[in-house]
Amino acid sequence: SLSFFLFPPRWCTMSSVLSFYVSYLLCLCLGFLCVVFVSYWNSKWRGGFAWDGSGLQFNWHPVLMVTGLVVVYGNAAVLYRIPLTWGENKLPWKLLHAVLMFLALLLAVLGLCAVFDFHNKQSTPNLYSVHSWVGICTVVLFATQQQWALGLCTFLLPCSPLDLRKFVKPLHVWMGSAIFIMGIISCISGINEKLIFSLKSGNKTQPYSTLPPEAVFANSLGILIVAFGVVVLGILSKQSWRRPESGPEDDSSRPLLREERQ
Amino acid sequence: SLSFFLFPPRWCTMSSVLSFYVSYLLCLCLGFLCVVFVSYWNSKWRGGFAWDGSGLQFNWHPVLMVTGLVVVYGNAAVLYRIPLTWGENKLPWKLLHAVLMFLALLLAVLGLCAVFDFHNKQSTPNLYSVHSWVGICTVVLFATQQQWALGLCTFLLPCSPLDLRKFVKPLHVWMGSAIFIMGIISCISGINEKLIFSLKSGNKTQPYSTLPPEAVFANSLGILIVAFGVVVLGILSKQSWRRPESGPEDDSSRPLLREERQ
Repeated sequence: SLSFFLFPPRWCTMSSVLSFYVSYLLCLCLGFLCVVFVSYWNSKWRGGFAWDGSGLQFNWHPVLMVTGLVVVYGNAAVLYRIPLTWGENKLPWKLLHAVLMFLALLLAVLGLCAVFDFHNKQSTPNLYSVHSWVGICTVVLFATQQQWALGLCTFLLPCSPLDLRKFVKPLHVWMGSAIFIMGIISCISGINEKLIFSLKSGNKTQPYSTLPPEAVFANSLGILIVAFGVVVLGILSKQSWRRPESGPEDDSSRPLLREERQ
Repeated sequence: SLSFFLFPPRWCTMSSVLSFYVSYLLCLCLGFLCVVFVSYWNSKWRGGFAWDGSGLQFNWHPVLMVTGLVVVYGNAAVLYRIPLTWGENKLPWKLLHAVLMFLALLLAVLGLCAVFDFHNKQSTPNLYSVHSWVGICTVVLFATQQQWALGLCTFLLPCSPLDLRKFVKPLHVWMGSAIFIMGIISCISGINEKLIFSLKSGNKTQPYSTLPPEAVFANSLGILIVAFGVVVLGILSKQSWRRPESGPEDDSSRPLLREERQ
């Protein structure tokens, strides 16, 4: 029944049920605020959006990166912690996890196109800052390792051997967290870089060091992104919130976990 | 005997023994390289060190932050994963964990003194960039929450009740990872900011965007820091590498806790 999934018996106390839903609600709200803040920053203070090789095209870069690599990625990562996904059939949720991760990658790749295209049209060099080095490593790891080699081939294709799944799962989980953290590092260093380049005295703006409203707003976006990351990693790290293993990919601890589900 | 601790029986296969020591060696080497790189960068390209309110005083800031918040902190975090620490008496290792964490905090506070003192002497505003906002949150969380309220009072004082320890431990572990990640975010955005400010055409340096040797070197430091963080979080996340619980702080519900342990 629905209440079985809303209030899983393995969360024996009401306080642990409450603490999950409060954390998950916090995760949803912070994620929503990140998208709102990054969009509002770029439309109100950076002139809005276009795809014409101008500075307005660059503005897509922060919006797509924060939305893809942080918000959609983070929500895809905590998906299996929602008790509603704990039914016998894991496949639809695996598909949703894969679809969300593919969406995250698509947004990130579009975000890269926005900045490379802008740099090339303005004859600005690409990939010189440590922000760009960490960022490109993040997207390359995400696109190659995680998405295709590990995620799709191992967990979605029914032909992949069980031993391979058991071996790859801890790697998938670990690399998944690493890519998420690298995405956050890239976003914070990118916001810092953008504000240093944009907020200079003279061109109708005040310098960054005087903390004009735009600086306070975009710095707050940075703090929201970090808070979102900390909440997501907190949800992921809590052992009792993990989906009880079931189905053929189960490992040796199956009998114990089975007992718990009665 | 020594071999019991070097090759714990719970790591049933030789490959899992090997993979721990390879990961731990990688963690030590990457940490060592981070300290060498950040020191060499500031002594070769930034003019070396002094404590006189000049730019040479600022140079202590990156060295102390990377060494304290990343390298010493990360090594203190993985301490309990070393099987040599798995003896009956956990107290000496708790003390070592506390001493290392205190050293990390001391280095971080000295690093803050270096930059605040430099800014004040040069009449540069403090705490305006998103780098500084995330950085100050990191040190404040580390100093208040983690170190005193949670770590020292709960785990080292023998009078603290067992229920409190059981309740606080997941929070301590989660906040501990969060502070480590926030430290890495601060370091990467700080390196990026420093290179943008320092590498401009004109003052005996080439602009950052032409990737002079200093930029390549300091960017590589950034990648080393991220790699160190990923390895540390990998070691921390591996369930079978955790210290088996023992001693008075796991009580009647021991089997359950065993299962709970990640």
